[in-house]
Amino acid sequence: MLIALPKLPLPSPESITRALLELGRALGDSKVLTGDACENYARDESEATGLVPAAVVLAANAEDVRRTLEIAESTGVAVTPRAGGTGRTGGAVPVVGGIVLATDAMKQVKEINAKDLLAVVEPGIVTGDFHAMVEREGFFYPPDPNSLGSCCIGGNVAENAGGPRAFKYGVTREYVLGLEAVLMGGRVLRTGKRTVKGVTGYDVTSLLVGSEGTLGVFTEITLRLVPKPPEVATVLALFDDVRHAGAAVSALVARGLVPRCLEMLDSATLDAVRAQKVAIDPRAHAMLLIEVDGEAATIATLLEQIADVLGRGEGLIDLLAAQDPSQRARLWEARRMLSPATRKLAKYKLSEDIVVPRSRIAELLDGVDEIGARTKVRYLTYGHAGDGNFHVNFLWNDEAERVAVDQSIEALMRLTISLGGTLSGEHGIGLAKAAYMPLEQSEDLMALQRDIKRVFDPKQLLNPGKIFPVRPGHGAC
Amino acid sequence: MLIALPKLPLPSPESITRALLELGRALGDSKVLTGDACENYARDESEATGLVPAAVVLAANAEDVRRTLEIAESTGVAVTPRAGGTGRTGGAVPVVGGIVLATDAMKQVKEINAKDLLAVVEPGIVTGDFHAMVEREGFFYPPDPNSLGSCCIGGNVAENAGGPRAFKYGVTREYVLGLEAVLMGGRVLRTGKRTVKGVTGYDVTSLLVGSEGTLGVFTEITLRLVPKPPEVATVLALFDDVRHAGAAVSALVARGLVPRCLEMLDSATLDAVRAQKVAIDPRAHAMLLIEVDGEAATIATLLEQIADVLGRGEGLIDLLAAQDPSQRARLWEARRMLSPATRKLAKYKLSEDIVVPRSRIAELLDGVDEIGARTKVRYLTYGHAGDGNFHVNFLWNDEAERVAVDQSIEALMRLTISLGGTLSGEHGIGLAKAAYMPLEQSEDLMALQRDIKRVFDPKQLLNPGKIFPVRPGHGAC
Repeated sequence: MLIALPKLPLPSPESITRALLELGRALGDSKVLTGDACENYARDESEATGLVPAAVVLAANAEDVRRTLEIAESTGVAVTPRAGGTGRTGGAVPVVGGIVLATDAMKQVKEINAKDLLAVVEPGIVTGDFHAMVEREGFFYPPDPNSLGSCCIGGNVAENAGGPRAFKYGVTREYVLGLEAVLMGGRVLRTGKRTVKGVTGYDVTSLLVGSEGTLGVFTEITLRLVPKPPEVATVLALFDDVRHAGAAVSALVARGLVPRCLEMLDSATLDAVRAQKVAIDPRAHAMLLIEVDGEAATIATLLEQIADVLGRGEGLIDLLAAQDPSQRARLWEARRMLSPATRKLAKYKLSEDIVVPRSRIAELLDGVDEIGARTKVRYLTYGHAGDGNFHVNFLWNDEAERVAVDQSIEALMRLTISLGGTLSGEHGIGLAKAAYMPLEQSEDLMALQRDIKRVFDPKQLLNPGKIFPVRPGHGAC
Repeated sequence: MLIALPKLPLPSPESITRALLELGRALGDSKVLTGDACENYARDESEATGLVPAAVVLAANAEDVRRTLEIAESTGVAVTPRAGGTGRTGGAVPVVGGIVLATDAMKQVKEINAKDLLAVVEPGIVTGDFHAMVEREGFFYPPDPNSLGSCCIGGNVAENAGGPRAFKYGVTREYVLGLEAVLMGGRVLRTGKRTVKGVTGYDVTSLLVGSEGTLGVFTEITLRLVPKPPEVATVLALFDDVRHAGAAVSALVARGLVPRCLEMLDSATLDAVRAQKVAIDPRAHAMLLIEVDGEAATIATLLEQIADVLGRGEGLIDLLAAQDPSQRARLWEARRMLSPATRKLAKYKLSEDIVVPRSRIAELLDGVDEIGARTKVRYLTYGHAGDGNFHVNFLWNDEAERVAVDQSIEALMRLTISLGGTLSGEHGIGLAKAAYMPLEQSEDLMALQRDIKRVFDPKQLLNPGKIFPVRPGHGAC
């Protein structure tokens, strides 16, 4: 286990027994897994392993969710909500066992409204499936987390997921118009609107987006769509050095150019991809992957401007552009291979997700080098450079290195905050980064958020142990 | 007084005396107005008149704000925050007198950061002044409420202000990266980030934006900027009938075109403007004002596409386009004259601010006609048609008509909700619409928001009586 679980009181055996009995009665036994069948629900795609839950509820509809949260509160058993289970910071990992409430079977797309440019979906629809569905009708749903083949919209909303296209289009929050959410205890809230504008009351919708399953469980999500961009083009730029690639990012942003993606891979990352037999010019020590979309005329102009900016800068080795889908896919190959490539590099890997202001990218890259030189931990860096959002991966094989890894991560977090950045751009805090929250947020701000959490979940039973560092004797958040 | 004040307990004379004494000591008498000088602070630009406050604090800095909120809580005196005082729903109107905390003297622009595309400002900077300042440096701050010549950024953030350009660029919330806010009692919170991405903790920033001065007082605002669009063009389209103009709006949206503004004026509105000696083709019974921005090539394409869509529809009488600033200003003349023009039409006016999904615009216009025919109250409609956000103005001269006006407004609110719309697109709820909140939001959702309010302001002393309908015996919210 790479990430320690916070110590929280476990539900009593009696409360578990009562909860199981009531869940079986209310939902029918086919929707309630127990015993060995629960083992797969102790983990998500983070490096944290939770306690195996006593029960997993496979919710088929909003009423199942409501009944589960009603029974959980009345019996005092904690609930961990789960959609695709693909989170990277432990959001779906059950810290105290209890009940896992899985919404991935709720896959209905209730409405795609062409006139109002919106869709109404259940939380379990896979993001990539939803993309395909709306694109067939001429629309576009921009958020594109890397796991889009398996992650669900419900989890994307809970984590406020991003992805490469966030550079132009923004993150999930920008697309959530309204929510139906069930609170611990079974209260059902409908928040938000079906219109693009609306300022009635507090923005409870935005508060729920990114709340990492700690405030409520989504049963219906109203999403804004945009028209599908008619054309897309991809540009791959190779550089002799990552600092020249970083300078190119700054120059593109300063020129006011807005590609939809602006991704960077450093030298170590390119080597990892090369080891997977992807051919990349051996002179290249950094790569930018740039994608533009829009009308054909707009794209032509943008491509010219990008080539102009990159050509004026230093260290450009090669520039390839493609508009044909299969050629574009080839240019994306290095980026797509990243996850399997880095997984094979070492026995253990921890991937961070920090963001710095775009003007501080060079300082971040220097600082990461300095940390690596000091702690001797192997690392590589890639990410959504246009947003200043970098995935710094630390890699090691020997458990004895773990102390140095922890030192590296803490140093990275301190560096990030010192540069005016933030701990997480799109993965959330979950279990993985809760300990670092005090680096970024004041005690007052965390106390306020804990109080907000109590408004939604007075007994602290919904996804306990997440986001905020657990303070001994203070309950679950 | 067109809008009744909710009945709330007034601060005791003893608490007022103590508060005045402590404020004078803490801030110096020059920053604390009392007596007649407070009279102008009982009103904003809504139709509500509050109780004249016992004191007005002219805050010069964040510490003044902190001290005021500390003293107010310790003495138990309510505070109404105020920036430009240009709100349309009574957000800055003091319901129980007490203290008005004015931040319009805090006008500093602390930073305009070209590399990170952001600005850090105090709340009192006038929105139009801020526009000019960032545009001189090649940037653009899109939100453009109609009152931009006198409203302040602080108030824009409190109300989540919009404006015509919201169609392309979104509303104020989309531009607020972070806030420094002082809570009642004097706790200072720094929320948000200096990066475009960031998912650390709950989105307290978005919760504060649009909270109408009920959760905290802003002392510093970090705003996202975008590159200044190189070119702008304006198109004015005249129609024989408002329904044909509405159909044109739907057709433009369906084609996926995104002008930055898409404004509509109905027949009665055009008559009001004509009465101000603005020449408008007498055959026109509706107007669309369309503005596009971007690179010259993009604009040329967009203008062609817009002309094509409008030409295919019914009822187009004339189409004028301009790129030259002075010609563009002439095309905007009718829209600019609207406020003075409508003010002269009748002794009394109430302007609503509802939003309907774009697919329901025709039903809204029909419904408003039906309400007018039934209640015999004179009305006119204009607004941000691209967003489905309409300002329906009811006009009358005789106080006896007031009952019919109230019936018209309630019918409009019910119609809006029945069409899937929302009570306010950009003006907020304030005092003017609090009574209608239960039409849109459930008791559970309002109760949750009242509980959130208590987290920020346990004694219910910050801007009491706003947003939520006051329930006798339940305190200030």
